Amino acid sequence: MTDTARANLENLYRIFTVPEAPDSTLGAIDQAITQNVADFLQKHVVALERSLEDIEKDFSRSRIPDEPTFVSDYTTFVKEKLVAQSVHTAAPGFIGHMTSALPYFMLPLSRIMTALNQNLVKVETSKAFTPMERQVLAMLHRLIYAGDDGFYQQWIHDSRHALGAFCSGGTIANITALWAARNRLCGAREDFAGLAEEGLQRTLEYLDCAGLAILVSRRGHYSLGKAADLLGIGRKQLVIVDTDVNNRIDMQCLRDAYSKLQQQNMRVLALVGIAGTTETGHVDPLEQMADFAVEAGCHFHIDAAWGGPTLFSDTHRHLLKGIERADSVTIDAHKQLYVPMGAGMVLFKDPHSLTAIEHHANYILREGSKDLGSHTLEGSRPGKAMLVHAGLSIIGRRGYELLIDLGIDKARRFAEMIVAHPDFELITAPELNILTYRYHPAWLQQQMANLDPQRRREVNLLLDQLTREVQKRQREAGKTFVSRTRLRSAVYGTEQLTVFRVVLANPLATDAILEAVLAEQLEIVAAADLQVLFSSIAEICQSAAQNG
Amino acid sequence: MTDTARANLENLYRIFTVPEAPDSTLGAIDQAITQNVADFLQKHVVALERSLEDIEKDFSRSRIPDEPTFVSDYTTFVKEKLVAQSVHTAAPGFIGHMTSALPYFMLPLSRIMTALNQNLVKVETSKAFTPMERQVLAMLHRLIYAGDDGFYQQWIHDSRHALGAFCSGGTIANITALWAARNRLCGAREDFAGLAEEGLQRTLEYLDCAGLAILVSRRGHYSLGKAADLLGIGRKQLVIVDTDVNNRIDMQCLRDAYSKLQQQNMRVLALVGIAGTTETGHVDPLEQMADFAVEAGCHFHIDAAWGGPTLFSDTHRHLLKGIERADSVTIDAHKQLYVPMGAGMVLFKDPHSLTAIEHHANYILREGSKDLGSHTLEGSRPGKAMLVHAGLSIIGRRGYELLIDLGIDKARRFAEMIVAHPDFELITAPELNILTYRYHPAWLQQQMANLDPQRRREVNLLLDQLTREVQKRQREAGKTFVSRTRLRSAVYGTEQLTVFRVVLANPLATDAILEAVLAEQLEIVAAADLQVLFSSIAEICQSAAQNG
Repeated sequence: MTDTARANLENLYRIFTVPEAPDSTLGAIDQAITQNVADFLQKHVVALERSLEDIEKDFSRSRIPDEPTFVSDYTTFVKEKLVAQSVHTAAPGFIGHMTSALPYFMLPLSRIMTALNQNLVKVETSKAFTPMERQVLAMLHRLIYAGDDGFYQQWIHDSRHALGAFCSGGTIANITALWAARNRLCGAREDFAGLAEEGLQRTLEYLDCAGLAILVSRRGHYSLGKAADLLGIGRKQLVIVDTDVNNRIDMQCLRDAYSKLQQQNMRVLALVGIAGTTETGHVDPLEQMADFAVEAGCHFHIDAAWGGPTLFSDTHRHLLKGIERADSVTIDAHKQLYVPMGAGMVLFKDPHSLTAIEHHANYILREGSKDLGSHTLEGSRPGKAMLVHAGLSIIGRRGYELLIDLGIDKARRFAEMIVAHPDFELITAPELNILTYRYHPAWLQQQMANLDPQRRREVNLLLDQLTREVQKRQREAGKTFVSRTRLRSAVYGTEQLTVFRVVLANPLATDAILEAVLAEQLEIVAAADLQVLFSSIAEICQSAAQNG
Repeated sequence: MTDTARANLENLYRIFTVPEAPDSTLGAIDQAITQNVADFLQKHVVALERSLEDIEKDFSRSRIPDEPTFVSDYTTFVKEKLVAQSVHTAAPGFIGHMTSALPYFMLPLSRIMTALNQNLVKVETSKAFTPMERQVLAMLHRLIYAGDDGFYQQWIHDSRHALGAFCSGGTIANITALWAARNRLCGAREDFAGLAEEGLQRTLEYLDCAGLAILVSRRGHYSLGKAADLLGIGRKQLVIVDTDVNNRIDMQCLRDAYSKLQQQNMRVLALVGIAGTTETGHVDPLEQMADFAVEAGCHFHIDAAWGGPTLFSDTHRHLLKGIERADSVTIDAHKQLYVPMGAGMVLFKDPHSLTAIEHHANYILREGSKDLGSHTLEGSRPGKAMLVHAGLSIIGRRGYELLIDLGIDKARRFAEMIVAHPDFELITAPELNILTYRYHPAWLQQQMANLDPQRRREVNLLLDQLTREVQKRQREAGKTFVSRTRLRSAVYGTEQLTVFRVVLANPLATDAILEAVLAEQLEIVAAADLQVLFSSIAEICQSAAQNG
């Protein structure tokens, strides 16, 4: 071996065996985050926006460097180029998306999880993590379905059955639910090997039906379209049902859609209810939907990725009444269970459901083994369930109840602030902790009622432009952040409006911050270069007055 | 507000704002792992096996506790019940699965990633992480496809195209590749909205074909069966092609299978090549397969989840010759890129490929945005690409080359030890860093050739039983670990054998450890209660001698 080769080898062993010195750059950052993550993030995640195009320049080398870099040099790069240009998702003023501050204990526990590097696909690489994950699934199952002790004693560790599947997020959870539902439509029988074996097309021929359909309201999450595509059903067969004024599925429209499908000899694979729509936080009429699913004989899935933890609240649990009748339910742990990104679950009422997607392999997942991988869409997976276990244990039901109640109360107070302010218009009131609104000055609100549909549309398009611009400038200023979306509002019929969207799940977001969000928006709309929009709006109103 | 309510609220704020004190139980564990993870794991991950049924008792409560638990109490539980009963996947003697020691810097960097809690689904929640992930994909793309500077300048940050998709692991990567391939079979045209919209069944009618098929060798990963099921194609249409004596796809069998499919009016969706089979580490004849895929006009996907990083090695790169002609390639970062669990990638030769699965939503992934979520199977995702970026930067090409070369050299030396030992039988020689073998005493090896097929089968069944038992006892003893699988060996025709499987990717696994693995197995087979197996074997041999 040459001296260089020996030196390279020694360096390599160092990387795998010698810990970062506490006084190294990386060690220092590590310490700083350990001591106070909020403080670290405030200091190092800069508020001032660099354009994405500009940031891209730091990440434009496509060649993997030949020679190693010193950890300290790399860390400086991370701090200056990556951390500094990250989004402070945990900031109390960041109320635009479904991210929040993390409980502190999640950080050292995450490190333990990373260091153990278990692979939950099988017992041989996860050991105690396997029963722990099964316990977490049972706990969430019980939260939803409230089975008795005997039920859970029987199923919690029964390797041939599963109360649910852990996964990287709500999208995989929704897909898993619909996959199991699809395969259960036609299992193996004497003259047919079943859908999983034969495929969709042969199954539809066998069942003599023209196609499968999934029914969901206009507010359904975009992962359902992905699922319809992925599962071979086709996006057209994801039938979008209209909503009522409260963004809940319209039961009459649902019935009509169903009749139409029946006439076309289409089979309804699943009805999907939403417990906390992504855009407005509303909850579908789950009881009525459960009745309907029984009538239609279809799988009833509920996407409670966001709203599921509302079940912790004695005060608000009733909003989700009927969820216990769902065949499957999606809950995201990285949302309102306050676990770091990358943790979702789907729970199945019937412990037999997941056998519809069971699979085995020779080197792992052998039949009869307790390997979790035989019932999951993903293969190798980290032990994220540990962090859910930690949250449920350390925060407890009462702690989560408090978090849920705080969020809903805060959303109501924010809605009141918006309603009380003459220049804002509440578009969707919060049922849970999400609301939408827009800037709509008092003078214009008065005129709006007098406008003909054509002019009203023109005005709304200009307001849309304003909302987009305000959202962008507020984000770029970096003090506070709301998101935006486009949706119909009861007041404006089928017109789509661009609106601000606010999610109130961060317990550190105070009323003062909410007031600051509105104040900042008022400041932005007063900017000189935006006045041209108001002039255009005024002109339209004027022309209406002249012609009216 | 009552005093209790106020106290609860204060506790809640504490959880979100006050860091763990360094002298708390969790703080102390955190410190211990920071200072020396290997030492911590050695002390706390116990070797002595408790049965899974016994461990399950610690995870059998299905009720979520009402009241919060102190972090310190919970941490004690984690240490004693979870960490202690984890698998020491990073131990140098744990050479049974695709896990290894992690480079040290991965731990503090993981903490930064967790603290930042970015969501890569969209720019608004990830910022610099978005271009960083695109850079990582470009770097791996370049490793495989070796495009020129101009190519990468054009595509690396082009939001309307993608060089690949980052995901939680190889299974999702393989599914994404086949999903894109399936949808590209039939895009939107004047008289048809395309497969994504219309679904599989209508598309097959439109194309007037009897079904789709995927071709892969007997050594294909089980995720391909999952993909065939999930995508609606059906597991029967995953056509398993026989392998040659070296576990590589047999090209003549492939041609035969293809002809048969053509006769049935079946369309080949994809041919899947394997660069490093999970069980034996062999590489398919990629060049020949690429030629065949051109001929058949089908998508050519390569599952290089394991073997992809062999491309770093000047010495061994040639084994993967032809990979640059694949339409898509899967690489797992949590395997031979030494990133913690939960990081995979699929790369596409053509930056247009992923548009076949593109999707949008109003509140995110708006058309024209740079949001990564419009091209991924998953929705919300953590910033794991940062750890790949770190590995590529800090270890560099030369460092990864060294790791690859070390593993392959070590596997060859281990194979030599096995061959040199009269009582072991090498079943599959290592092409990369994986091999399989079994205990097969010299006296029996001599007799085996004289046995008729029936008796040989009986003996092999008894040897299978022995292998299973030895593997189990070795695992339970906790000093070293090999895995086991069942596969055909050229020597025994179509008979499946149970064999030990060894994966040599941990740079800390020394030759002394490999010797210890064999020594321990020899000790185990000498156990008194296993002698009955040898007596049965001897009887069979004797009866053969008498009848022969």
